[in-house]
Amino acid sequence: MTLEEVRKEIDRVDTQIKPLFLQRMACADHVAAAKAENGSDVFVPVREDEIIAKRTADVDAKVKKEYDMFLRHLMSVCRRYQYGILTGMQETVIAQALQAAGLDENTDHEQITVYFTDSRKNSKLNLYMNMVRLNDILIDAMEVTSRDDEQQVVLKLHGNIKEPDMRRLLCQLGKEANEFKITALQ
Amino acid sequence: MTLEEVRKEIDRVDTQIKPLFLQRMACADHVAAAKAENGSDVFVPVREDEIIAKRTADVDAKVKKEYDMFLRHLMSVCRRYQYGILTGMQETVIAQALQAAGLDENTDHEQITVYFTDSRKNSKLNLYMNMVRLNDILIDAMEVTSRDDEQQVVLKLHGNIKEPDMRRLLCQLGKEANEFKITALQ
Repeated sequence: MTLEEVRKEIDRVDTQIKPLFLQRMACADHVAAAKAENGSDVFVPVREDEIIAKRTADVDAKVKKEYDMFLRHLMSVCRRYQYGILTGMQETVIAQALQAAGLDENTDHEQITVYFTDSRKNSKLNLYMNMVRLNDILIDAMEVTSRDDEQQVVLKLHGNIKEPDMRRLLCQLGKEANEFKITALQ
Repeated sequence: MTLEEVRKEIDRVDTQIKPLFLQRMACADHVAAAKAENGSDVFVPVREDEIIAKRTADVDAKVKKEYDMFLRHLMSVCRRYQYGILTGMQETVIAQALQAAGLDENTDHEQITVYFTDSRKNSKLNLYMNMVRLNDILIDAMEVTSRDDEQQVVLKLHGNIKEPDMRRLLCQLGKEANEFKITALQ
């Protein structure tokens, strides 16, 4: 195959994937609507792991990790979509985190510091960085340290806690990251 | 739509995406073979931006960012595949970085420190974290600082520079990240 032929093939494949990706996103709308009604949670890691194990079972070892990550990425993006719609959930997550830290959202600030932990071996730092990016939030600073199989993350996000995209991001981190805390508004 | 109905719909869509994703990965094999022959570069950002602009042009604003990120993710994963095959390119990138830093790959070490810069607004930190994850490299520590529209990243990777997955990762970072440097083997 010449480079020109492969490029045509890639173009053909991407053209077929596109409508399916858009359908997948539309599903997130319906999931959010259904979950808003019955109050069930957006992120159920055990269920996700089961689905991924089933889907990847027959995939060639050479591209299995790629397909696994592809699915996790797709699911994370769909959840972000849901968190954006479920504003009641945002309120709860953020109010709880602020209360636990003794912080007031009306404090004048342009930077929010959050803390969470992550597995080192099964790190989801890539997904967390996707979320930050999709919500168009700039990073002022980040520090990751490791101990045994855990990594501790301190992330300084640029912006105000009342901005919709910031609330959506904090809601997703709050629901999905381990030991999530808001530690400062400054 | 009930949650059960949406889940069936998601399952249907994912079943259709799966063979296409695997075909897309197979294309990366052919691209790598063609590029090994004619020596052209794996990462041509201008070309990628053009393709993405064209593909996303008619997509609803509501999911445009998601589709944009989806494509960049897909492309990054395919390039990782290519860097794994193009071992001659790995040799060149790593030898140059070591020489520039006055480092010797035979030094006893279990941690590699790298430095690079990134755009803050168009950050690719999510893609870099994907690469680290796909290559199964553990992060010992990471520090991100920001100044204007630039972020500086210091990343301490756990492992030895002679390991194949580490070489593949360093090659991709070396080819794709701005101002990439290996600063320490320890």
